[in-house]
Amino acid sequence: MSISYGQGSECRTAKLVLALRGVVGAENCIVDDEHKARYLVDWRKLYSGKTLAVIRPGTTEEAAAVVRACAAANVGVVPQGGNTGLVGGAIPISDGEEIIISLERMNRIRALDKANYTVTVEAGCVLSRLHNVVAEASLFFPLSLGAEGSCQIGGNLATNAGGNAVLRYGSIRNLALGLEVVLPNGQIWNGLRALRKDNAGYDLRNLFIGSEGTLGLITAAVLQLFPPPTHITTCVLGFPSLERLPDIYGFLRERLSYGLSAFELMPGHAVDLASETLRGIRRPMRASHPYYALVEVSDFSQDAVGNSAVEATTMELLERQLISDAVIAASAAQRRDFWKAREGIVDMQPLLGAVAKHDISVPVSNIGSFISQAAEVIDKIAPGVLQIAFGHVGDGNIHLNLIERENEKMSAFRARAQEIGVALYDLVDAFEGSFSAEHGIGQLRRQDLISRRSSIEIDVMRAVKRTIDPQGLFNRGKLFATP
Amino acid sequence: MSISYGQGSECRTAKLVLALRGVVGAENCIVDDEHKARYLVDWRKLYSGKTLAVIRPGTTEEAAAVVRACAAANVGVVPQGGNTGLVGGAIPISDGEEIIISLERMNRIRALDKANYTVTVEAGCVLSRLHNVVAEASLFFPLSLGAEGSCQIGGNLATNAGGNAVLRYGSIRNLALGLEVVLPNGQIWNGLRALRKDNAGYDLRNLFIGSEGTLGLITAAVLQLFPPPTHITTCVLGFPSLERLPDIYGFLRERLSYGLSAFELMPGHAVDLASETLRGIRRPMRASHPYYALVEVSDFSQDAVGNSAVEATTMELLERQLISDAVIAASAAQRRDFWKAREGIVDMQPLLGAVAKHDISVPVSNIGSFISQAAEVIDKIAPGVLQIAFGHVGDGNIHLNLIERENEKMSAFRARAQEIGVALYDLVDAFEGSFSAEHGIGQLRRQDLISRRSSIEIDVMRAVKRTIDPQGLFNRGKLFATP
Repeated sequence: MSISYGQGSECRTAKLVLALRGVVGAENCIVDDEHKARYLVDWRKLYSGKTLAVIRPGTTEEAAAVVRACAAANVGVVPQGGNTGLVGGAIPISDGEEIIISLERMNRIRALDKANYTVTVEAGCVLSRLHNVVAEASLFFPLSLGAEGSCQIGGNLATNAGGNAVLRYGSIRNLALGLEVVLPNGQIWNGLRALRKDNAGYDLRNLFIGSEGTLGLITAAVLQLFPPPTHITTCVLGFPSLERLPDIYGFLRERLSYGLSAFELMPGHAVDLASETLRGIRRPMRASHPYYALVEVSDFSQDAVGNSAVEATTMELLERQLISDAVIAASAAQRRDFWKAREGIVDMQPLLGAVAKHDISVPVSNIGSFISQAAEVIDKIAPGVLQIAFGHVGDGNIHLNLIERENEKMSAFRARAQEIGVALYDLVDAFEGSFSAEHGIGQLRRQDLISRRSSIEIDVMRAVKRTIDPQGLFNRGKLFATP
Repeated sequence: MSISYGQGSECRTAKLVLALRGVVGAENCIVDDEHKARYLVDWRKLYSGKTLAVIRPGTTEEAAAVVRACAAANVGVVPQGGNTGLVGGAIPISDGEEIIISLERMNRIRALDKANYTVTVEAGCVLSRLHNVVAEASLFFPLSLGAEGSCQIGGNLATNAGGNAVLRYGSIRNLALGLEVVLPNGQIWNGLRALRKDNAGYDLRNLFIGSEGTLGLITAAVLQLFPPPTHITTCVLGFPSLERLPDIYGFLRERLSYGLSAFELMPGHAVDLASETLRGIRRPMRASHPYYALVEVSDFSQDAVGNSAVEATTMELLERQLISDAVIAASAAQRRDFWKAREGIVDMQPLLGAVAKHDISVPVSNIGSFISQAAEVIDKIAPGVLQIAFGHVGDGNIHLNLIERENEKMSAFRARAQEIGVALYDLVDAFEGSFSAEHGIGQLRRQDLISRRSSIEIDVMRAVKRTIDPQGLFNRGKLFATP
C-alpha cells in the first residue's frame, strides 16, 4: 500500500513536471541535478534544498499557468529572484518536494513614463540594470544595496529591501506604486497602477510587499523614479565614542535636513581589518579613529549648496568637539574609496571566519547606547568574540555581526551564537526595537518571529496567510514556525 | 412572535448600552437624541444615520472593552474621528442599529522623541493640535489639509489622508511607523513601533491604514516628524492652457526636484468666483489668466536657495513661453493670500449650489489631457454645468466638482450627476487612473469600487475583511456594496 502510494505520488509529480514543461518549454523546465544546483543553494551556502524542477516562465500568463498546475497537484511553490537573500527565504525547505519558479526570464522594462516619473518593470529585472536603464533617461531609482548587481526587483519587493538610501527615499515599499501578482489560486491580480494616490479599498500592494513569497508571486511592479541629485557631497567623520553618535546624527539631521541621504557607521577596527584583508581598501583619513560615520548629502538645486552646507556643519561639529576629524571627498574617486571602505566591512567578513549576522533596528535616539550595551551582553557570553557593529544607523538599523575566531570549533561557536541571539534580542526588545530590520524572516528567523512578536500579531498574520493561500502552497515553512 | 423578538432585541441592546455605560461612565455614553445629533450627520449634511449610543472611551482598554461588549451582542461598531470625511464613512448607515465609538477623548500626545523624529499620538488628537505641539519642539509634521482644524489623526489614518504635502512627504501611509488597533474581537494589537525599518512578517500597519474603519479601531499611532523647512518659497504661475501643464510641471520637477513641495492647479474662473463670493480672497496677480499653478519649494539648507532657484526657474518658464506671468510671495501675508485663494475655491462651492465632488487621479503625464477631455465629456451630458477642476495636480490628483446652476431642480441635477459619474469614470479607466484618489469609498463610492475594480481584487479584499472581522462588526455597509 505504501509502495503504491509512493508510486502514485511520483506519478502525480511526474505528470505535473510534464505539464509545466508544456507551459514553459523544455529549456525552461530544469530537472537535471547539474542545472538545478545553482537554484538550490543561497549565495552564502548556508541553505540548501530540493526541488522537483526549476520552472522559468517567460510571461505572467505562463507564470499563472504554472501556479494553477501546482495548485491542482497540491505541490508547493518557491518564488526565486536573484537568490541574494540572507535568511534562506528563496531556498526550498529540505524536506519539501516543491517547484522553484525562477523569475529570471521575466526581466523586461515594460514602460518608462518620464513625465510621470515611473517605470513598469518585470520581477526578474536585476536592480543594477534598472539603474542603468533609468539613468539613460536622466532619471534615478534610489534603491541601492550591496547585492544590486545580482538581486532582482521581485526579490527586492518580496523582502521589502532597504539598503543605503532609506534615510531619504524609504525602503522599496515607499517606492512601489503598483504590483502585478499571481495569486495562489493562479489568478492574476493586475494592480499595476502608476498613481501617487489611490484610496480605493485595502492596500493589497503593501500586503504582498515584504511577504517573502508566502502570499503569491510578484511578476511586475510600477516603481517611482526621481530626478537624479544634481550634486552629492560625501564625507567621513571620525569620532571617539558611541556616546557622541546621537548628537552627531541629530546635529546633521537638523542642519542638513532632507538633504541627508546616507549616514553609515563604520567602526575603526573593522575598517582597519578590511584594509588588511582586502585589496584597494583605504582608511578614509590619515589618523585612525575608533568610529567613522560615512555621510552623504544630496542636492536638489542647480546650485551645489550641499558642499558648503556640509563644510559649515562639519566645522561646527569639530568646534563642538563632537567629532575629531572630517574629510570631504574631493573627487568621484575619493567618494568611491569611502564607499569601498563601507562595503569592505561586509566583504571581508566571510574571509575571516563563520559569520553570525544580526540585523537589528532601534529608535535612532537610542542607537549609541544600544550598540554599547549589546557589546557588553555579547562579551559576557563569548568573551573576545569579534564583534562588528556597522551600517545604516541613520535609519536606526545596525548590522551586528559576530565572527568566529580561528582557533575555535564551529559547533562551539554555533552553540554560543544561539545563546547570544537570545540575550541580544532580549536587549532589542528592551529597546523597543526589531530583531529583523531589513533582512526578513525566511527560514533563519522563524523562531524569533514567533517568540518576539505578540500572539495577537502572529494570529492576524496567520489568518491573512490562510485566507490568501488556503492550500498553504506558497513558500512552505518560511516566515511561520510551527507554533 | 415578531413582537416578542422585537422586545428581546430591545432588551439585548438596552443591556448592551448599560454595559457600555459601565465601561466609559454615564457622561461618555450618549443616548439622548439632542446630544447624539452632531455625531449622526456629516459636516456637509449629506449623510445622516441612527445609533443606539455614542460611546467615548478614554483609554485603549476602555475602547477594547466596548468592542468586546458589542461583539458579544453582535451589534455593529462605527469608528468616528473628526467627522470631516467626504464620503459618509464615519456616519452609520441609516438602517443600522449600531454603536458609534467616538475617539475624541483619546487625544493625548503619549510621547515625543525628538532625536528619533517621532511622536506617539492617540487617534482623537486633532491634526492642527499635533502641528502646534511638534512645532513647539522645533519639529514638523507635514500632513496638511483643509479640515486640519477639526479632523483627527485616527480618521486621517483610517482614510489614508493626502492633502497639500503629498508631493514631497507622501500621504499619511508614508508618515506612520506604528499603530495601536483594537481588533474586531476586542484584542488590542500593539504595533506602536517607532522604527524606520522592521521587516518581520506581513505589513499589518498598511492593512489598517486606509481601511476606513472596517477592520478595527485605530487608537494610537507613531508618526514620523521632520525638521521644519528652513525657508519656503511660494509662487503663483499664470498660464493660458492646460496643454502646457505637463511641460510646466515637468520643468519644475526637473529643476527643483525634491524641493518642490506643492503644485496646485487653480482655474482662473474659479479664483474669480471665489473672490466674488467670499471676503478676503484676492486674485494672485493683476492680470487674469485662464489657469494658475500654486507652487511651493521647501528649503532644507541654512542658505535660502529655494528663492533664487524659483526665480531662475520661473524666468526660464517665461522665456520658454510656457507661462504668461509669475509672482513670488514677498511676505508671509502674501503667501497666506495665495493659499487663501486656493482654499477659497473649496469654501465658495457650497455657497453656489449643490456640489457633486469627484476625486480623481491619473498619471501626472496625462493630467492636462484628462482635464480637457473630462470637461468635454461633462459638457456633452450637461451643457453649461459649472465645472471646477482644481487641486493637487502635482500628485496627479484632480478634484473635479460640478455645481448645480441656480435655476435647476436638484433632482434633475442629481440624475444627470449619476450619468456624468459613469461617463467620467469610464474616461478615468481609459487613462488608467483612480476614481478615488484621496477621499476614499465610504458609502458614496461603494458601487464604483465594485464596478471599477476587478473581481479578483474585490475578492481578495472581501476575504481579508472576512478573516479579520468575521462577524462583520466594523463599519457595516461601508466600502463594499452588496455584490
